[in-house]
Amino acid sequence: MRRTVERYVGDQLDVPGLIARKRDGGELSPEEISALLGAYLVGEMDDAQMGAWLMAGTIRGFGERETVALTEVLLASGARVDLEGLAGPTVDKHSTGGVGDTTTLIVGPLLAAAGCQVAKLSGRGLGHTGGTLDKLEAVPGLRVDLSVDQLRSQVERLGIAVAAATQDLVPADRRLYALRDVTATVDSPALIAASVMSKKLAGGARHLLIDVKVGDGAFMRTLEDACALAERCVALGRSQGRRIAAAVTSMDEPLGSAIGNALEVGAAVEVLQGRRAGPLRDLSIELAVLSLQLTGVGRRAAEETIRQLLAQGAALETFREWIRAQGGDPAVADRPWEVLPVAPVVREWRVMEGVVARIGCREIGRIAGGLGAGRRRQGDAVDPAVGLELALRVGDVVEDGQVGARIHARSHEDAEEAARALDDAVRIGRDPVTPAPLVLEVIGDVEGDAASAPA
Amino acid sequence: MRRTVERYVGDQLDVPGLIARKRDGGELSPEEISALLGAYLVGEMDDAQMGAWLMAGTIRGFGERETVALTEVLLASGARVDLEGLAGPTVDKHSTGGVGDTTTLIVGPLLAAAGCQVAKLSGRGLGHTGGTLDKLEAVPGLRVDLSVDQLRSQVERLGIAVAAATQDLVPADRRLYALRDVTATVDSPALIAASVMSKKLAGGARHLLIDVKVGDGAFMRTLEDACALAERCVALGRSQGRRIAAAVTSMDEPLGSAIGNALEVGAAVEVLQGRRAGPLRDLSIELAVLSLQLTGVGRRAAEETIRQLLAQGAALETFREWIRAQGGDPAVADRPWEVLPVAPVVREWRVMEGVVARIGCREIGRIAGGLGAGRRRQGDAVDPAVGLELALRVGDVVEDGQVGARIHARSHEDAEEAARALDDAVRIGRDPVTPAPLVLEVIGDVEGDAASAPA
Repeated sequence: MRRTVERYVGDQLDVPGLIARKRDGGELSPEEISALLGAYLVGEMDDAQMGAWLMAGTIRGFGERETVALTEVLLASGARVDLEGLAGPTVDKHSTGGVGDTTTLIVGPLLAAAGCQVAKLSGRGLGHTGGTLDKLEAVPGLRVDLSVDQLRSQVERLGIAVAAATQDLVPADRRLYALRDVTATVDSPALIAASVMSKKLAGGARHLLIDVKVGDGAFMRTLEDACALAERCVALGRSQGRRIAAAVTSMDEPLGSAIGNALEVGAAVEVLQGRRAGPLRDLSIELAVLSLQLTGVGRRAAEETIRQLLAQGAALETFREWIRAQGGDPAVADRPWEVLPVAPVVREWRVMEGVVARIGCREIGRIAGGLGAGRRRQGDAVDPAVGLELALRVGDVVEDGQVGARIHARSHEDAEEAARALDDAVRIGRDPVTPAPLVLEVIGDVEGDAASAPA
Repeated sequence: MRRTVERYVGDQLDVPGLIARKRDGGELSPEEISALLGAYLVGEMDDAQMGAWLMAGTIRGFGERETVALTEVLLASGARVDLEGLAGPTVDKHSTGGVGDTTTLIVGPLLAAAGCQVAKLSGRGLGHTGGTLDKLEAVPGLRVDLSVDQLRSQVERLGIAVAAATQDLVPADRRLYALRDVTATVDSPALIAASVMSKKLAGGARHLLIDVKVGDGAFMRTLEDACALAERCVALGRSQGRRIAAAVTSMDEPLGSAIGNALEVGAAVEVLQGRRAGPLRDLSIELAVLSLQLTGVGRRAAEETIRQLLAQGAALETFREWIRAQGGDPAVADRPWEVLPVAPVVREWRVMEGVVARIGCREIGRIAGGLGAGRRRQGDAVDPAVGLELALRVGDVVEDGQVGARIHARSHEDAEEAARALDDAVRIGRDPVTPAPLVLEVIGDVEGDAASAPA
């Protein structure tokens, strides 16, 4: 009786009362979460109220029951992709987003070559650098507007397809995300988990690997927050009967040396060609191995499979057919730098002697965004050609005048501005620096000590 | 340079960045507060963003510099009343709002009779019970829609006038308050201080007394929060060159025994007639004394003056002329219960033997609101006749079957429901109870140990 009075005034939901409870650190029941979101979706709770509630929850936190309820409401708001009946295990690998993080273009073909079914629905990137769709669209001719039927039939044929999420996929998340984006309520582990997982669950894959980025260039700044997000994702996946794991990986400096849409495609191709080593390659292999483990393959066998598929060019071949199937120029798999768009200005940026102490990841992202690689608002166009190629990593010993980066810009002015910003973003010191490990934690439905595996 | 980047993206204010800073417990500069509020008022910051920012500030708190800046932006948004050149000291007494708190109807005439100039602009109550305007309008014929000129000339003639705040008085506060009301961001000491003080400063009085209510029936639930609010109000008043004090007073049980608009007018008249003792009378005297002290009168002389004006009927006479001047039936000063509207149903509610341990103040307010005494939304009509008369105070020893309250209702059903709710709101125990003191703290520009003065 008391509880009813709190939730309802007369026969109306007491929205301010529910907001106040979250403000004061209280918890809402699943029914209350459902009623609140429902009220918002039908217009009985306004944007100001949702903004306030999201902020209260971002600061106070949401409990696990609340997160499950939130995810279920989001999931129930739209259609689900049916991937039942495909020939191999359905797998989806998702990153929470970082800088120079183009593992999908490598992991996807690797898994498809390994016999998995990779049907991926992706959103547009909203941030300093583009998302997977933006990167793919840097390939001339490539289309991402596949229907669900086209997606499914391409996966049946090639083992992989990546398409833009349609409007009817978790529409409630779309509305909520647009609001979170402008109200500084993106960085909540529970809200990110609900948003990510509602889309992954709607996407239909039975095996899910979540790459939770942590550090200066990620939504999650602390290992604690990142592990909280990873645990929530795993719990949410399991609550819906999926096999799921989450890897917490470092984003204190850009993952790959290329930042920018075409530059990242080129870098991914070079990894698939076996011509590029480094953290982008290392993490892609590890994520592919973990994904394969989720489908029931043992750790050692999974590693062997993935390394062979990469070494023998099977993943590159799958990549080529994938690009061709979606209308892109397949020559990108052979001569990426001849096929991909090129920026009119390329300028070198040089460093002074010392040891690379810090590469400000968020600032690097912002610089690439300033060059035109990302979008500030939904609907903005991105420039596929611009971005940065970094020639340093934290811990490198560098000489005076050594090239630290190549800036790909639309104009000399843009390049100058980027160069000045790089002076601030990169710090050269005197003392030796030991870079942090790449994979910090792995939780979920995989065996073995994966966290210590990659360099 | 770094700072500019944070605040502006290109030439646009980085609203999400400023929201994020407050979310993380940071402080905004006066220029940033001004830019943020400015962006909201011209529509460049939307309701969702303001809701989120207000929630972040409500949870994290606003610093003193932020509160001053906020107040100045609100104050600058509208007109100011010019009270310069009036014959006596201009005084405004303001309560942050409680239940059965009708001291304005007593303190106003007392101060006017003492030679002060009381020009009060008041808002409509938004909550369980009505505001001062609603109470005054319970008097048949009384009008509160005075122009500023009418207000001023009535004050020149009688020493007192109370009018509805016009639309151009602090319009920014009006917008912000409407938003706070639905987003559970009302209970912030800084936001309340800025809202109250911007209106008081725009109201033009040189001497300000703020009655900060604390306890179950007030916005401020803890003494700490109430003192924080009191200190902020005093600092804000002083920053604008006013003489100001704030009294923190108890609202753990209703102040007066009457709760409801006409019932409270009747109770105020009985105090002015010298026919009603109790906390409403005690606090009214104390607030009038403190107000008089603010104008430079010593504590002892102020007490003597106020008690005499009450005892000799001078305040009642001023009340009568005030009511007459604003079109109300002056007979209300002599025979209130014949003049004021009466509810069709009056029902007694009885208690069991014991000691009154608790009178849930908020619940009492809610019960009165349920009977029709308050408004749930702006623009709702209030019923002047309905409400409660309590016949108990905390600590009273009561007998079995003794009348605990009289319920004034529109229907038998309403009265029944109120009676059931009273069973929950009032707790009768066994052990003796010592009621809390009425005035808990006094800070600001008054001498003497006032906090220990009243019972």
